Amino acid sequence: MDDIEQLIAMLARLPGLGPRSARRAALSLLRNPETRMLPLARLMEQAATTVQTCSSCGNLDVVNPCHICTDTHRDRSIICVVETVGDLWALERSSIHQGMYQVLGGTLSALAGLGPEDLNVVPLMHRIEAGEVKEVILALGATVEGATTAHWLQEKLSSTGVIVTRVAHGVPIGGALDVLDDGTLAAALMARKQL
Amino acid sequence: MDDIEQLIAMLARLPGLGPRSARRAALSLLRNPETRMLPLARLMEQAATTVQTCSSCGNLDVVNPCHICTDTHRDRSIICVVETVGDLWALERSSIHQGMYQVLGGTLSALAGLGPEDLNVVPLMHRIEAGEVKEVILALGATVEGATTAHWLQEKLSSTGVIVTRVAHGVPIGGALDVLDDGTLAAALMARKQL
Repeated sequence: MDDIEQLIAMLARLPGLGPRSARRAALSLLRNPETRMLPLARLMEQAATTVQTCSSCGNLDVVNPCHICTDTHRDRSIICVVETVGDLWALERSSIHQGMYQVLGGTLSALAGLGPEDLNVVPLMHRIEAGEVKEVILALGATVEGATTAHWLQEKLSSTGVIVTRVAHGVPIGGALDVLDDGTLAAALMARKQL
Repeated sequence: MDDIEQLIAMLARLPGLGPRSARRAALSLLRNPETRMLPLARLMEQAATTVQTCSSCGNLDVVNPCHICTDTHRDRSIICVVETVGDLWALERSSIHQGMYQVLGGTLSALAGLGPEDLNVVPLMHRIEAGEVKEVILALGATVEGATTAHWLQEKLSSTGVIVTRVAHGVPIGGALDVLDDGTLAAALMARKQL
């Protein structure tokens, strides 16, 4: 395999890129080696050293602890538990959550062979033991794995005295009912509120 | 802007990647610095030196002249003219064309400020002057720019004595008629063949 084919193959391995878009991306890079390919290559080499996993919450950042964990304006009494860094970024973009985070790095999954020891919960327990946490919000996916993980975490946290909540399930804002799956409809109906 | 945001911004500039997929790609790279990000970075730095534009046909390859131009099994009497290296690759994947290529590197476009001097046609004229070319196939896009470029090339080649052909326009194989635009339908109808 020559460098071009190898570049396409490596780009195609990125999520969101298929063989077709990987070829287009590779072409765009190869046609602009000085302005696109080399700057990106150098940035990636640099980021491989500068970007680290926050030892407190599990976020990815150029500083450790991350800028969220060291932000004195944030509410340290509320910790939002998410599966991935991508989930954390999504919540940060919405600017709704003003507290802290804990990135689990996955969910309990028998299929993927992930057990409790594979989830990043030790820093969460440490922070709870330190005494400043009042509420833990479980913002996990509405999947079987997410629900299993939420259940397990709820049990694990039950003795600590902190309030454990989970995000609501229901009809997405802007979403039509007729395109939703039965599970979402059932959840939305069961969690109905009096107006 | 820190390294993470910069990485996302640079990835988002690649064709086929939006801000959302760029974030996913960046996360995937950042989570696997040793196995994904650094190998890709090193490959891109390497490819920036190894991959060159073929001085004969304009293809991108790790050798110059490219492996197509040096392939003795190919028919040197037919040259297929394409707009971009991506078009050349698409034709090569189909394995239909057994002749040579000429990559113009674009089309005539008043809007983009591209004139005849911006198109890579000198090597084509040299090859025709050398006397071994019998046919030039214009495989340009069925766009206004593609048609303009085809017309200009046809004029330019008219005095050389080579046969100039262009690819057929019509209904794509596997395509339904009711989703096609009027232009394609008109072209397909006008180019109808007796059975």
